Amino acid sequence: MLYMVHMVVNIPATVSPAEADEIKRREKAYSQDLQRAGKWRHLWRVVGEYANVSIFDVASNDELHTLLSGLPLFPYMQIKVTPLANHPSSIVQE
Amino acid sequence: MLYMVHMVVNIPATVSPAEADEIKRREKAYSQDLQRAGKWRHLWRVVGEYANVSIFDVASNDELHTLLSGLPLFPYMQIKVTPLANHPSSIVQE
Amino acid sequence: MLYMVHMVVNIPATVSPAEADEIKRREKAYSQDLQRAGKWRHLWRVVGEYANVSIFDVASNDELHTLLSGLPLFPYMQIKVTPLANHPSSIVQE
Amino acid sequence: MLYMVHMVVNIPATVSPAEADEIKRREKAYSQDLQRAGKWRHLWRVVGEYANVSIFDVASNDELHTLLSGLPLFPYMQIKVTPLANHPSSIVQE
Amino acid sequence: MLYMVHMVVNIPATVSPAEADEIKRREKAYSQDLQRAGKWRHLWRVVGEYANVSIFDVASNDELHTLLSGLPLFPYMQIKVTPLANHPSSIVQE
Amino acid sequence: MLYMVHMVVNIPATVSPAEADEIKRREKAYSQDLQRAGKWRHLWRVVGEYANVSIFDVASNDELHTLLSGLPLFPYMQIKVTPLANHPSSIVQE
Amino acid sequence: MLYMVHMVVNIPATVSPAEADEIKRREKAYSQDLQRAGKWRHLWRVVGEYANVSIFDVASNDELHTLLSGLPLFPYMQIKVTPLANHPSSIVQE
Amino acid sequence: MLYMVHMVVNIPATVSPAEADEIKRREKAYSQDLQRAGKWRHLWRVVGEYANVSIFDVASNDELHTLLSGLPLFPYMQIKVTPLANHPSSIVQE
Amino acid sequence: MLYMVHMVVNIPATVSPAEADEIKRREKAYSQDLQRAGKWRHLWRVVGEYANVSIFDVASNDELHTLLSGLPLFPYMQIKVTPLANHPSSIVQE
Amino acid sequence: MLYMVHMVVNIPATVSPAEADEIKRREKAYSQDLQRAGKWRHLWRVVGEYANVSIFDVASNDELHTLLSGLPLFPYMQIKVTPLANHPSSIVQE
Repeated sequence: MLYMVHMVVNIPATVSPAEADEIKRREKAYSQDLQRAGKWRHLWRVVGEYANVSIFDVASNDELHTLLSGLPLFPYMQIKVTPLANHPSSIVQE
Repeated sequence: MLYMVHMVVNIPATVSPAEADEIKRREKAYSQDLQRAGKWRHLWRVVGEYANVSIFDVASNDELHTLLSGLPLFPYMQIKVTPLANHPSSIVQE
Repeated sequence: MLYMVHMVVNIPATVSPAEADEIKRREKAYSQDLQRAGKWRHLWRVVGEYANVSIFDVASNDELHTLLSGLPLFPYMQIKVTPLANHPSSIVQE
Repeated sequence: MLYMVHMVVNIPATVSPAEADEIKRREKAYSQDLQRAGKWRHLWRVVGEYANVSIFDVASNDELHTLLSGLPLFPYMQIKVTPLANHPSSIVQE
Repeated sequence: MLYMVHMVVNIPATVSPAEADEIKRREKAYSQDLQRAGKWRHLWRVVGEYANVSIFDVASNDELHTLLSGLPLFPYMQIKVTPLANHPSSIVQE
Repeated sequence: MLYMVHMVVNIPATVSPAEADEIKRREKAYSQDLQRAGKWRHLWRVVGEYANVSIFDVASNDELHTLLSGLPLFPYMQIKVTPLANHPSSIVQE
Repeated sequence: MLYMVHMVVNIPATVSPAEADEIKRREKAYSQDLQRAGKWRHLWRVVGEYANVSIFDVASNDELHTLLSGLPLFPYMQIKVTPLANHPSSIVQE
Repeated sequence: MLYMVHMVVNIPATVSPAEADEIKRREKAYSQDLQRAGKWRHLWRVVGEYANVSIFDVASNDELHTLLSGLPLFPYMQIKVTPLANHPSSIVQE
Repeated sequence: MLYMVHMVVNIPATVSPAEADEIKRREKAYSQDLQRAGKWRHLWRVVGEYANVSIFDVASNDELHTLLSGLPLFPYMQIKVTPLANHPSSIVQE
Repeated sequence: MLYMVHMVVNIPATVSPAEADEIKRREKAYSQDLQRAGKWRHLWRVVGEYANVSIFDVASNDELHTLLSGLPLFPYMQIKVTPLANHPSSIVQE
């Protein structure tokens, strides 16, 4: 089941650069694990912004929230979730 | 080169149902041609709305505008284009 | 799996009162069938507006879109879907 | 009498993690007391956000404000209240 | 129990002037009946707009919706309801 | 001459709790003086928010600004003023 | 007493060009009478828009509403009123 | 003196296709005359929209309004003007 | 050449009261010099807000930016500029 | 391939004036290098704001993101990218 997720990152000045780097390092590992597991199907940068557009493939709303709220950057992100359905004109079922 | 395109359809009452059906039939064919050509990489329905989220893969801004403005439903759609770039945490280059 | 759905109805003047009544009659029957089937768990009127707040319980995004796009009033509604998850402070699992 | 309440939580960096944990612990107890009392009928997490959608069942506007302004997280929440009425198509009176 | 109600009127060109006058005549009578009954406590014009700010005093959300949806101009109005509570600094209980 | 005034309070963390209490104490006294003088005709809490809806009765725009900018909480409030006029359907002149 | 008034004009296609010209002719005369009377102190075009920014000088909110609602173009305008006060840094009292 | 001008075109269904074509033909000629005269310095299409971003070079606000309000499509466009100034980091004076 | 300028002031808590007073003293002198020079034609307070509406009369966009960016409060203001043109119904050329 | 880029700068108080000056010095050099390389085709100040409107000419979305995210002021800017295409009425191909 697919969802588009739009994430905007905003790390406040109260987080030290070293701390921020550590959080980003863990974020990257976490994200790549989910990509390899097929849960995080696509991850694209929005040009000119510290933001991404992602496609998640999960079994339920609950699973999606668990994955998103576990993001190391979760406390510093504004996230908007759009549930997706199959489109009748699509040539694939995805 | 990838772009997220968000399209909202709004066919006014001045278009007769028969005309609307004919336009939608041509839209579907046009869309599926582009999907087969690899230009229109993904096409998803936004749940609960007469709208879609799409990913286009084209060579230039000009090509994207040519494709979008050629949509049979173009006069009845509100379209928003978001250019995408490779994300440093993505495990694939796409 | 639960979703909050917010629907605002706006029937244009091009629909005759008789037609509108017939559509509303079918909408009511359709809605009550889904309520009885346990798919449409709650249906509340927003005070002062021709709008409702609803809770749907469905198996997937696709099922939700199928149900919503089948609403007789669908062409005349603006719908916004919010996916819901279990809340850790809730005393029930729903 | 029912109300939909949408709460978004935003704890500033000036609150220490220990303080925040203590506030959240009290928030959970407070919320569960109201749920058991039948005042806070539903509590759902908004997927991907530190936010919830709730349904309250209270005797008056004043009672609702008293309950909401007593939330331990109240100083750190943005709250929006939507009064609900019975819907003529609902199969239950709630 | 008090509510602030903000109403914006927008009568479409499909309503003839004679019809519009008849609707406004009935709206005025309806409004004045509710004012005399103490339900519609205040009614003010927003300067420069075909809009009003009103204070209603009713027993419940359901009663408020019944009164508002019975307005002859209801199909042509955009209404926003704000529930009010007693303010601790107010010198009167109202 | 009447005005609706909508005030949202947001005291930053840089104000100590003791200071905040002292400001609120003065705000209450200031507000009640104006209510007794008939300038601040109504003061209601917006349910679920640290905000109020008020009706002021003053001789001029200048007087209203003088009263509002003198509020002890003025530096911490977002204020929106809506000038009101007599409504032709109102049964009272106010 | 001064007010800034922002007016945006939008004459629908249901008004014939001849009718529109007649309304605009009356609007101009009405506006110039109020300018000569000192009530409509300034009238400027917003560059690129069928809109104006105006400064009115009237005795009360009621007088302003009477003047604005009497505009021949009033049914076709979106008007926003901002009450103005004397500024402490202004070198004139106006 | 430079201005960025953003124009969105929306021709209503009440304009016949033949009329629309004639207006667009005149719009193109008008636009190209101004481009040749050096007044309309740049004209770009916004990808995916019936809209453009333009740079105008004119002697005054009045001249800009005269040029824009003379556009054959002016009655069917929503225009937003942003005045531009020389940027201290620009390597050219333009 | 006239422009409407809307300025909202927001001095952060990191500026000490003494510093703020000094900035405001310089702002007032700067503003009054420009008023006396005929550049800052009108300066009005927006009722209930720490904001003003102003009319500037300058020779060019560049001059306006130079004047505005030189305001002592410039770093703490949100400014919106609206270019104005002569209105065909105005009885004066200004 | 052209893009309009709108950048708003907001340097927080946690950055010291000396640091800010150093960042701005590097920003200017970086910007001028790109201008000389023909990548940053135009750079204009938005009148009255700490913001600019720019036109970039790059080979791809990825190149644009690389250039923008390399801006020394990038962490302190809000950036919005609009992809541009050739306009059929433009007298030049650019």
